[in-house]
Amino acid sequence: MFKITAKSRRSKARAGILQTPHGTVETPAFMPVGTQGTVKAVTPSQLKELGAQIVLSNAYHLYLRPGLGVIKKAGGLHKLMGWKGPILTDSGGFQVFSLADLRRISDEGVTFASHIDGSPHLLTPEKVVEIQKTIGSDIMMPLDECVAYPSDKKKVITALERTYKWAKRSRDKVQEIRGKGSGQLFGIVQGGMFKDLRKRSAEEIGELGFPGYGIGGLSVGEPKEIMLDMLEVSTSSLEYDKPKHLMGVGYPEDIEEAVKFGIDLFDCVIPTRLARHGAFLTKQGKSIIRNAKFEKDFLPLDKTCDCYACSNFSRAYIRHLFIAKEILAMTLMTIHNLRYMMKTMENIRKKIKAGRI
Amino acid sequence: MFKITAKSRRSKARAGILQTPHGTVETPAFMPVGTQGTVKAVTPSQLKELGAQIVLSNAYHLYLRPGLGVIKKAGGLHKLMGWKGPILTDSGGFQVFSLADLRRISDEGVTFASHIDGSPHLLTPEKVVEIQKTIGSDIMMPLDECVAYPSDKKKVITALERTYKWAKRSRDKVQEIRGKGSGQLFGIVQGGMFKDLRKRSAEEIGELGFPGYGIGGLSVGEPKEIMLDMLEVSTSSLEYDKPKHLMGVGYPEDIEEAVKFGIDLFDCVIPTRLARHGAFLTKQGKSIIRNAKFEKDFLPLDKTCDCYACSNFSRAYIRHLFIAKEILAMTLMTIHNLRYMMKTMENIRKKIKAGRI
Repeated sequence: MFKITAKSRRSKARAGILQTPHGTVETPAFMPVGTQGTVKAVTPSQLKELGAQIVLSNAYHLYLRPGLGVIKKAGGLHKLMGWKGPILTDSGGFQVFSLADLRRISDEGVTFASHIDGSPHLLTPEKVVEIQKTIGSDIMMPLDECVAYPSDKKKVITALERTYKWAKRSRDKVQEIRGKGSGQLFGIVQGGMFKDLRKRSAEEIGELGFPGYGIGGLSVGEPKEIMLDMLEVSTSSLEYDKPKHLMGVGYPEDIEEAVKFGIDLFDCVIPTRLARHGAFLTKQGKSIIRNAKFEKDFLPLDKTCDCYACSNFSRAYIRHLFIAKEILAMTLMTIHNLRYMMKTMENIRKKIKAGRI
Repeated sequence: MFKITAKSRRSKARAGILQTPHGTVETPAFMPVGTQGTVKAVTPSQLKELGAQIVLSNAYHLYLRPGLGVIKKAGGLHKLMGWKGPILTDSGGFQVFSLADLRRISDEGVTFASHIDGSPHLLTPEKVVEIQKTIGSDIMMPLDECVAYPSDKKKVITALERTYKWAKRSRDKVQEIRGKGSGQLFGIVQGGMFKDLRKRSAEEIGELGFPGYGIGGLSVGEPKEIMLDMLEVSTSSLEYDKPKHLMGVGYPEDIEEAVKFGIDLFDCVIPTRLARHGAFLTKQGKSIIRNAKFEKDFLPLDKTCDCYACSNFSRAYIRHLFIAKEILAMTLMTIHNLRYMMKTMENIRKKIKAGRI
């Protein structure tokens, strides 16, 4: 399922190929986020054209809307959304804790009220696996308990122990219904901002023997040094040759740091969200398209970019579209920011292969 | 500039080819509306793919935003918006009367406050020609005075006489600056809902000798029989072999009626606006995608359609996108509705060539 094709001698960074039922992914890879079954503001053909290899969607959101009945009848999410490549789904653990109301956590699972209509729901580890099987995810994530940052150690331990039990039940559920689709379930490492708990979680989850691992609960507001410390402990306590996903990260600069610890997969809403709010990414950082200095700037968003937006339109035009509240502004900015992420990853893969990371 | 290639024996309907500096247009043609320099929610490449031949934009809107400075520096609207085909621009007469505030009309021109920031502006017939020259329009429209519906005859006569004087000044201005770009100026026929005034306007404007004509002030709330009566008088009083544009119309059923009077060009915001508000067009009329009956309907929006939306997505998916407030819903619906209009026109052209209209 995962083959490492190049290793850096200067760090744990590696390039690889991840095989999924819907094709292969060259890693390290950035996954555009399509929470509700669409990467916001772009078509699947635009996504493919800009070089996206795999998209991330969310079991929590899709379960609530359009609902499993629709997804099942469509023949799965790939067919529903017209995306033929791999799909990784988050379990929705994080969303239950950040979006939903009135939640009650017990060993059985988590009870919450939908953020859409307030309707009550119970998600158990088993149900979350079933949801992702119905979705047809190439990579599934188990239900986990996410703690807020900062949290005291006792609270983190409770969540960690529950996350472990849920991971085991999720794995058992996958084995029970193995025939139904061929997606793989990753394990998730938690442990808050405590090195010993990160180590414990990685070892315990690792012992359950998943084909890949997510590192959860990072980049939630902690200082970057702490994040990197936690990342180091989490990854070094996991089997080296399994694919690893740093969940919810991130910024190009964070990605380049994280690959040094052997991270292979990234996802983050930031590039697409920034785009819709009028910020575009270049090597110089982010720029605000509404800025008056772009009024008569007829350069592309990024002179070094080969995306559809940069090949055909100027900053002046996209600024005009933004100020005039035209939808096309969001589409063009999204295409550019995602292409920028894709090229960042291409560049990182090249550097790893050349031993420069 | 305009060549009639087929005539119907059963009506004045004809098929033709309109030549412009940016390519030819097979007529009768529907022009998608790109008021602010973008057809809302679609890219120029999507527009081209769905078969759009020419787009309509608006001198009033572009003059206010992004402003002539930006358009001039971009090298014209075609370059600014990345659309290589023909562009027709409305003068903005209609918009001044419908959108702007504090207007004062005199023989000189019209004074108004911008609907965007309240800034004061004076548009004269000469200035409107200059604006459209800067835009680089393939087909320009002169400033005209639009009256509300209903209006009494005296008011209509005043507007008609002013529109005539303005048309003459616009024509003179075009002749004066002929070297600057090669777009053509059409004349506009007004006359409210009075047959004698429609006849008078058509004859007077026709005597000025424009290369084509717009029929203005129709489909503004009047009963359809009146519209068709006015259309008949307006067109039969104009030179037969000049291209004619029925401004702001319309619905597929209105278009099929109007071509019988020799109309060659149509534009209307309805197909794109309906799309953004969740209505899609088929031969059965318009359907509301939010309707519960589409929840598990995995057919395309229109079984007979070959557009990107209908080739790749189901009603159930687009309904989900709509309910989840995803931008992609508007893009897909717009692509479909515009493709539907393009096919309607293709079909009308075929019927004319086969003598069936």
